[in-house]
Amino acid sequence: MSEHYDRYETRPQKSRESALLRDLKAIVSVAKPRAAGLRKQIRGINIAEIKRREDLARIPVLRKPDLHQMQADEPPFGGLVATRASGLRHVLIDCVEGQARDWWGAARALCAAGFRRGDLILNCFSYHLSSTGHIIDSGAAALGCAVIPAGQSRIERQLEAIHALKPQGYCGKPAFLKQLLDRATEVNCDVSSITRALVFGAPLDAQLRQDIEARGIHLRQAYATSDLGIIAYETDTPEGGLNAGMVLNENLILEIVKPGTDIPVAAGEVGEVVVTRLNLDYPLLRFATGDLSMMLPGASPCGRTNLRIRGWMGRVEDAAQVDEKLLLPAHVMQIADRHECLSRLRMTIMRDHTRDRVLLHAETSNADTSLHARLGASVQAVTGMGAEIEIVAPGTLPSDGKLIVDERTKA
Amino acid sequence: MSEHYDRYETRPQKSRESALLRDLKAIVSVAKPRAAGLRKQIRGINIAEIKRREDLARIPVLRKPDLHQMQADEPPFGGLVATRASGLRHVLIDCVEGQARDWWGAARALCAAGFRRGDLILNCFSYHLSSTGHIIDSGAAALGCAVIPAGQSRIERQLEAIHALKPQGYCGKPAFLKQLLDRATEVNCDVSSITRALVFGAPLDAQLRQDIEARGIHLRQAYATSDLGIIAYETDTPEGGLNAGMVLNENLILEIVKPGTDIPVAAGEVGEVVVTRLNLDYPLLRFATGDLSMMLPGASPCGRTNLRIRGWMGRVEDAAQVDEKLLLPAHVMQIADRHECLSRLRMTIMRDHTRDRVLLHAETSNADTSLHARLGASVQAVTGMGAEIEIVAPGTLPSDGKLIVDERTKA
Repeated sequence: MSEHYDRYETRPQKSRESALLRDLKAIVSVAKPRAAGLRKQIRGINIAEIKRREDLARIPVLRKPDLHQMQADEPPFGGLVATRASGLRHVLIDCVEGQARDWWGAARALCAAGFRRGDLILNCFSYHLSSTGHIIDSGAAALGCAVIPAGQSRIERQLEAIHALKPQGYCGKPAFLKQLLDRATEVNCDVSSITRALVFGAPLDAQLRQDIEARGIHLRQAYATSDLGIIAYETDTPEGGLNAGMVLNENLILEIVKPGTDIPVAAGEVGEVVVTRLNLDYPLLRFATGDLSMMLPGASPCGRTNLRIRGWMGRVEDAAQVDEKLLLPAHVMQIADRHECLSRLRMTIMRDHTRDRVLLHAETSNADTSLHARLGASVQAVTGMGAEIEIVAPGTLPSDGKLIVDERTKA
Repeated sequence: MSEHYDRYETRPQKSRESALLRDLKAIVSVAKPRAAGLRKQIRGINIAEIKRREDLARIPVLRKPDLHQMQADEPPFGGLVATRASGLRHVLIDCVEGQARDWWGAARALCAAGFRRGDLILNCFSYHLSSTGHIIDSGAAALGCAVIPAGQSRIERQLEAIHALKPQGYCGKPAFLKQLLDRATEVNCDVSSITRALVFGAPLDAQLRQDIEARGIHLRQAYATSDLGIIAYETDTPEGGLNAGMVLNENLILEIVKPGTDIPVAAGEVGEVVVTRLNLDYPLLRFATGDLSMMLPGASPCGRTNLRIRGWMGRVEDAAQVDEKLLLPAHVMQIADRHECLSRLRMTIMRDHTRDRVLLHAETSNADTSLHARLGASVQAVTGMGAEIEIVAPGTLPSDGKLIVDERTKA
């Protein structure tokens, strides 16, 4: 049965929206005198005039290179951290953790993944010069779960800990959970105490999910970054199944912008995830993650009323803007899935005078006469773009893992 | 200037002693119904009758093999942990950490080493399946220090963190601090922000201490174990120098017993450290550490009124009982220090019918006629024992690091 962490998760979206904008003003007014970097970012902007989500677009987006420049100008945190060392819990090279309970917002994700008070969690995220271990550690403390701080110990030591302590839950990267389960089978170690898992920090494909669930583990995924903590998380249907997409965490405003710009995309379009974190120690206004996602319409059937996103859809630098459309590595993979005879695929974007040209190279040793036309139709269906198709022999394309190559000169 | 963490440290020893015995009774009465292992250990003993330190001897000492047997009989903690998972913070293979502030008692040691509220600490103890990282982490939080959870990250990453974040303090093993300082010199990285250090977990010899202090670092040592946390710590003279010995931590009762027995030694004798930890989550009564130390007479000049010990003096298994005396590896090292011409030394203890014989093998290529007699006098002066002396050529003794070899059959 699905339970909520608290009543904030089920309040009307309108109440949440006005609370978020109110918190934004309050936090900026408290942090501004102590954070020179924040003052710089909002210079000339009257925060009191930000009354609706659309008004946020007045604040310039803060991208990683800007942040690094600010950090170089004013070490170590670019004047964005508003709390002194005596008020901080942990300090990392790129970020900090304050003293507030569940500072990274992990308790809601743990709760949504089925973790409950009194559970024992094997935490395989690193605690060493990494925020991920601490994200789970502090969230577990807030939820009333004890933690085995396993981090990146050797797999044999991890199995020894599972065997001795019988944790109910796993937190870590998804592939490492699979490794643990496989190794346990090899050495005949009983790890059946683990019945739930919350994973993030690396891609989870359908096959990996299926492999883990086949071992009787209730597996849920979050979307998190090491700067921001938990941004969104998967939820259960009332029957314990998986709802589509991910529900946003509380205490943050998420926008999807056209990659590389400050401008929000139209509803339902893929773009770059930009997060405003409403945190008194280290507020971040319109921080661009470099990750791609899209909003989903409507609310989640789990009863949580917050906005939903599709989850992580790749990195901005791996995508290419073609005219008004965004071409994603995921698109190329979808095209590959439609044609079993292909070994390797690559999309190349070229500039021909004033016009962008998209070229699909497809490797196959088994090209029938209709393949050319069928590939063209697939590209159109998946991306909404037209493309020239070139069929080549297997081994022609370089094996560099690139699905999209942008050959346009940045004019 | 030396400061104390709180007024408990300077209360009259008589008040502390009665508070400790009162706490012992209170904790046992709360924990007993929840901890079957504790009930087993004190079966037949009326805790209310324990009125003086001497009465503790009625409780049997708990040694590591007993503990492991109890853990095997009642996994995972042998029925000695009195708190459920929902009340614990971290769970390790051999021990737990509760939710109480500064659960391991590290804040006093940090304070005595000169750490102050607002300091930033580079914590090089591991957080992964190890309590040491968490011992410092929770102590720092209690003292109001922020922590860089560096753990066992690569040395280059550690230097990067020091360079970017400029911590004032270091916590970790002493030899690793030396490594960090040496590597920083090699790569010309400025680590001069570090001006104080609290070290434990590995031996600190005079040379290492001098090398670190020569870099302008105020270095203090604690005595800690991964089960018990901080047991004792060094303190400053009013002028900032080093007081002799270590002051005991609060909330524990320390005894020195004849190794392998339940019987306290006479005042001032070397023996095995036995600790009673007065903790509600995981009380440990008369837990034998396997470490050797001795009490020092009188109180510390720093104003802390608690008892003092000499610090860590080696492991019980590396020492040998000869008649009523204890022969320590440290004794052999002291003898070596008195004679520059020696390369390797070894003490062998043999049983000759009913009498123990001690034999000193000394390697030298430069034996003058008086060496034999001078070595005999040194053995007598350092150990209080007589020994037969045998001078051998360099390379005769095996290079296995053993200073004492006990060849008596355990009859």
